[in-house]
Amino acid sequence: MKIQLAVDRVSIEHAVDIIKEAEPFIDIIEIGTSLFKDFGLQSLKEIRKQFQHPILADIKTMDEAEYEFRQIFKNGGDIATVMGASAIETIRICQRVSQEYNKDYMIDTLEINDEKMNQLKEFEDAIICLHLPKDKAGDLQSFIRDFMETYHLTNKIAVAGGVKLEDIPLFKELGIEIVIIGSSITKSEDINESAEKFKELVR
Amino acid sequence: MKIQLAVDRVSIEHAVDIIKEAEPFIDIIEIGTSLFKDFGLQSLKEIRKQFQHPILADIKTMDEAEYEFRQIFKNGGDIATVMGASAIETIRICQRVSQEYNKDYMIDTLEINDEKMNQLKEFEDAIICLHLPKDKAGDLQSFIRDFMETYHLTNKIAVAGGVKLEDIPLFKELGIEIVIIGSSITKSEDINESAEKFKELVR
Repeated sequence: MKIQLAVDRVSIEHAVDIIKEAEPFIDIIEIGTSLFKDFGLQSLKEIRKQFQHPILADIKTMDEAEYEFRQIFKNGGDIATVMGASAIETIRICQRVSQEYNKDYMIDTLEINDEKMNQLKEFEDAIICLHLPKDKAGDLQSFIRDFMETYHLTNKIAVAGGVKLEDIPLFKELGIEIVIIGSSITKSEDINESAEKFKELVR
Repeated sequence: MKIQLAVDRVSIEHAVDIIKEAEPFIDIIEIGTSLFKDFGLQSLKEIRKQFQHPILADIKTMDEAEYEFRQIFKNGGDIATVMGASAIETIRICQRVSQEYNKDYMIDTLEINDEKMNQLKEFEDAIICLHLPKDKAGDLQSFIRDFMETYHLTNKIAVAGGVKLEDIPLFKELGIEIVIIGSSITKSEDINESAEKFKELVR
C-alpha cells in the first residue's frame, strides 16, 4: 500500500517544508485542490523542482479535460484527477491524454450514482478514488467497506477522506493500493513521526 | 440580459488586455476555470485591481466549499461557482458563505440528473447556470430550450457553452438573465467590435 500525502491550505513554502519532513515515509505527493486553486500551476512547478516523488495534482477536472490534463503533465505532474461526475466524454479525454504522456489519471467518485459507477467500468487503467467528502459527515471505514462490497472493481483503488492510523488495517485487508492522508500527518505536532507511524502500519 | 465575458487559456496580462477591449460592453468579468487553475488567486487579485466590474470566479467547487468560497470573496470576487453535481451539503455551505459576504453563488448544472435538479429547488437565491460542456458535442439552442421547458426555474438563469451572436434572440425570448460569452468575443479579430455587437443584440 502506498502513502499519498495531501497538502492543502498553506503557502507553497510551507507546503515544501511539510513535504520535506514527511518525505522519507511517503510515496506520492498530492497537491490538494485548495493548494492548487490558491496558487495554480506555480504550486506544481515549485514542488516538482524540489522533490523526486511522483506528484498528483488534485485538479478535479469537470470539463475542458484536454487543456487541463496537458497543463499538469507538461508541468511535471504524474497523476491528475477527474470527477467521475463529469461527462463520460470528459473522462475519455483524460484517459487518452494520460496514455499519450504515459502518466496516470485518477477518477474521483464523489457523489456519483450507481448508473455512473457502472459506466466507469470501461476505464480499466484508471485509479479509482473512493472519497468521503469533507463537507458531509460520515464514517470512513463503513463507507469504504460498503463501496468495495457493492462494486467489484478491478482497478487500483485509492481512499481519501480524513484517514487516521486506525483505518489502515481495514484498508490493507481490502487490498487498497493508495491511502491518501492529509491532516493526520500535515497538522500533527511532529510531521516526521506521524508519517513514520503510517509507514510502519502500511508495511 | 447581462453579458458575462469568460476569459481563459491566456496569461493574466493577456486576459487584462482582452478585458480592456471588451470592457465598455460587458457587465460581468469571468475568470474561467482554466485561467483560475493556471494562476490561482493571483488571476483574481490582478484583474480585481484593474477593473470595477463584478467578477465571477469559475472555480467549480465540488467539496471544501467553506475554504474555497471564502478565498474568492476575501480576494475581491463577487460570484463563485459550485457544481450542482456536488453534495447538497456543499451547496448549502456555498449559499451560507455567499449570504455572509452579501455575494452571489452560481450553481453549474453540468451533468446533473433529474433527481438532483429537483433538489436544487431549495436554492432560491442561486444563479443557475445551464451549461453545455465543451467536451461533448451538442446544439446549444435546443439544449437550453429543453432545459427551460423541463424545469420551471424561478432562479436567475445564466447560459454557457459556445454562445454565438445568433443564439441571443432565443435567450432573450426565454428570459435568460446572464449570457456567458467566451471565444466568440475573446478569439475574434476585433474584440471591441465583437463585444459591441453582442451588446447591441442583448439590449
